[in-house]
Amino acid sequence: MTLSSLYRDSLSLFTDLYQITMAYGYYSLGIQDKEVCFHMITRKNPFEGGYTVACGLAQFIEYLEGLRFREDDLNYLQAMKGADGRPLFSEEFLDYLKELRLQITVHAVPEGTVVFPYEPLVRVIGPLLQCQLVESALLNIINFQSLIATKASRVVLAAEGQPVVEFGLRRAHGVDGAVSASRAAYIGGCVGTSNVLAGKLFGIPVKGTHAHSWVMVFEDELQAFQGYAKSMPNNCILLVDTYETFQGIRNAVHVAGEMKARGERLLGIRLDSGDLAYLSQEARRILNEAGLKDAVIIGSSDLDEDAIANFKEQGAKVDMWGVGTRLVTAHGDPALTGVYKLSAVRGPNGRWEYKIKISEQLAKVTVPGVLEVRRYKRDGEYIADAIYDLQMGLEEPVIIMDPSDPTRRKKIQGGLESEELLVPIFEEGRLVYSLPSIEEARERCLTQLKSFHPSIRRRISPHQYPAGLEKRLYELRSWLITEVKEKVG
Amino acid sequence: MTLSSLYRDSLSLFTDLYQITMAYGYYSLGIQDKEVCFHMITRKNPFEGGYTVACGLAQFIEYLEGLRFREDDLNYLQAMKGADGRPLFSEEFLDYLKELRLQITVHAVPEGTVVFPYEPLVRVIGPLLQCQLVESALLNIINFQSLIATKASRVVLAAEGQPVVEFGLRRAHGVDGAVSASRAAYIGGCVGTSNVLAGKLFGIPVKGTHAHSWVMVFEDELQAFQGYAKSMPNNCILLVDTYETFQGIRNAVHVAGEMKARGERLLGIRLDSGDLAYLSQEARRILNEAGLKDAVIIGSSDLDEDAIANFKEQGAKVDMWGVGTRLVTAHGDPALTGVYKLSAVRGPNGRWEYKIKISEQLAKVTVPGVLEVRRYKRDGEYIADAIYDLQMGLEEPVIIMDPSDPTRRKKIQGGLESEELLVPIFEEGRLVYSLPSIEEARERCLTQLKSFHPSIRRRISPHQYPAGLEKRLYELRSWLITEVKEKVG
Repeated sequence: MTLSSLYRDSLSLFTDLYQITMAYGYYSLGIQDKEVCFHMITRKNPFEGGYTVACGLAQFIEYLEGLRFREDDLNYLQAMKGADGRPLFSEEFLDYLKELRLQITVHAVPEGTVVFPYEPLVRVIGPLLQCQLVESALLNIINFQSLIATKASRVVLAAEGQPVVEFGLRRAHGVDGAVSASRAAYIGGCVGTSNVLAGKLFGIPVKGTHAHSWVMVFEDELQAFQGYAKSMPNNCILLVDTYETFQGIRNAVHVAGEMKARGERLLGIRLDSGDLAYLSQEARRILNEAGLKDAVIIGSSDLDEDAIANFKEQGAKVDMWGVGTRLVTAHGDPALTGVYKLSAVRGPNGRWEYKIKISEQLAKVTVPGVLEVRRYKRDGEYIADAIYDLQMGLEEPVIIMDPSDPTRRKKIQGGLESEELLVPIFEEGRLVYSLPSIEEARERCLTQLKSFHPSIRRRISPHQYPAGLEKRLYELRSWLITEVKEKVG
Repeated sequence: MTLSSLYRDSLSLFTDLYQITMAYGYYSLGIQDKEVCFHMITRKNPFEGGYTVACGLAQFIEYLEGLRFREDDLNYLQAMKGADGRPLFSEEFLDYLKELRLQITVHAVPEGTVVFPYEPLVRVIGPLLQCQLVESALLNIINFQSLIATKASRVVLAAEGQPVVEFGLRRAHGVDGAVSASRAAYIGGCVGTSNVLAGKLFGIPVKGTHAHSWVMVFEDELQAFQGYAKSMPNNCILLVDTYETFQGIRNAVHVAGEMKARGERLLGIRLDSGDLAYLSQEARRILNEAGLKDAVIIGSSDLDEDAIANFKEQGAKVDMWGVGTRLVTAHGDPALTGVYKLSAVRGPNGRWEYKIKISEQLAKVTVPGVLEVRRYKRDGEYIADAIYDLQMGLEEPVIIMDPSDPTRRKKIQGGLESEELLVPIFEEGRLVYSLPSIEEARERCLTQLKSFHPSIRRRISPHQYPAGLEKRLYELRSWLITEVKEKVG
């Protein structure tokens, strides 16, 4: 199953109105089929981190495959009025939408790919109206999932090999905010989720035992633990902090003894409040003294990568981490600022004409061209990425330049192993991509991350990986900026 | 239409696994029908603000009405395995879920109600298993929509009567993260959204004209503006900052003249970057000098309540604000920390037995009882809320106490006008609530806010509204804390 099986019908209206008014404008002026090129890029890594994990492509593909304007969608658009009370859209245009089938060519980086600012995550080429129409959904889906995959990856790195389970459903941003977050968190390296629907839709392992309310329903905690062990002997992890943690641990030890006598096993305990460093050390000691060395200690409660790193520094004996709110809401940076920008228009001579949008901040000026990324490897380690224009091509040795700081440049020696990051997804509307499994996407993320220098993965003040514009592309961009500025005075 | 029409099927698995394992435990032990009481409360207002706007009840009602375990849900649960490789759930239990129809009694505050920490937004009474089962979805839906309605309300207050439109789809947390945010933002006081699907589902006004890409497709900006005016003369707001803002304004003025000659009208311009205070003042001057006093200026770009307040302080001449990312992702506080806690169990004598969960932080200790809130009014202004236990009742004059600071207390004089905040939603599974329209919910929010002292609405360091536990309830809670602590030693 897939995320789109969650939705009843077409998501064609899941867009900003201006995409449809622009589509109408292009159609009215007869330029709807002008061939153009757009890219989705990010301008900075989230969380002041050293990298971004691309995620969400599978759902964007589903969106594109299902994109049809259905009767009720068209009826809704038909009823929209302009400032003069007359219909916003013509009947001819609505008929056009009704028959519309996408013919766009899409390239993208596979899910789980580690990317850097200015690198296209998605490239869309095709008829102007169609390329424009898909913008909002593309950004919504890929911004969010990439954000959460990146956050999860940071949390998983902080846990240093200990498993991390995503627990965030109750604080996530709506149904899909939870379900998509569970998916992205898994691709980012989590081992499972508490979210049963995400488990059903994507095949993610699902975890869970009991809450405080279970304990409160019984006369006392010991009875509650005994009841849980009796009813679920093969999934018994006891939450020990409803009243007093040490008493809770002792009660869990008592129940473990009773279970052992029945040939069953207490899997572990969960600590959900207080000082996880201190409590987990004491819990480990008590459990070990009771001969329960195999019982795991799960830690939860307002965790994120920083909290986990701190607890571990202080000697926490937690074996598995449950991370909820701060993971699924991307605490600290709740939006990935990916943008989707026009970068080239096919000219009458068949050549791409470069396009640029100016801003007072150099970082916000767009990158012109039809872009590709080549990633170089030396001795098994990724060392630099060159963003280049396919029309100009790439000549080695390559010099790359930081898009927002021309004094930062790097020469890449020739003869290195390299790969292109973007792969074909749709060719003129036809799906040509064989979608990797969610396990493959997760594996890709974990494997790729290991192939960068550890300084890129550092949680705080990471090294900035050299991912820059190939020198001629950089110069083209500078020249276009100057030209536009001269033109407008 | 409603949000649930977005989803294809049952959301019964949209929950944390532990709700289902606990349900199984209750069922296995034969206590699934024990009568209990749960409340959803928040512990603090988001954004360090003075209030919270309750929102999301309509979708929670839809969720409850649609809650059925369907064949594929049950098949999924059936395949889940415990640590010993045996099924996690028994066949009898799955049959039980298949036949399950909710019989819970639900009270809640209507959407748009202004609430304060510790006040129940929702009270659920009924069979233990059923009350437990709905927790995760309840929290997901109401936490998120209340968070966004509150954020929107803050932004709308900062705009001081100028309209605010929500533009956040592209950075929202997934499909529902956008659609639910558009709904909640409207209830919080926005005048519309860019999100067409939200417009279709909820009847929210939808706004939008064109993006930078429209301008970039043409040879120059003037041609682009002329093309847009030609194709959409009844919805013409021109985005003027693709290349250089002043040139953009002059081009818009030029096009306004051409439109006027055709009997059409430029509605306005949009500024999407740079110093909105300075640029909007200059834009206003240029437009006025050209005789375009009616043309509105829309401001957008990384806005939130603080940015709008600052721009206004600096004399911005913006007439309408477009607020996106920071609104729909609840910038500054991306999760409302609402919790759903067991507070009472029906005893064998028919009386409610009070339940409490202890924490090292007094603020995190739960409130026992079957709770209701009485809001007092004097001279048309709300002056205090008393949270009280229905079993103990309320005797006036009432003394209320801050749940986390016993030195803060207030005596409420007798004879004041008052109202109870919670209204009946479901009676033993039967919907008894006539759902207000989204317009009514929005109106309720706007009207209620006006009835509080302005200091409660203050954006920064607001006054803390007196909403506290009635004295006997406070004392009961203190007594229970002591009792539990003595018991666990």
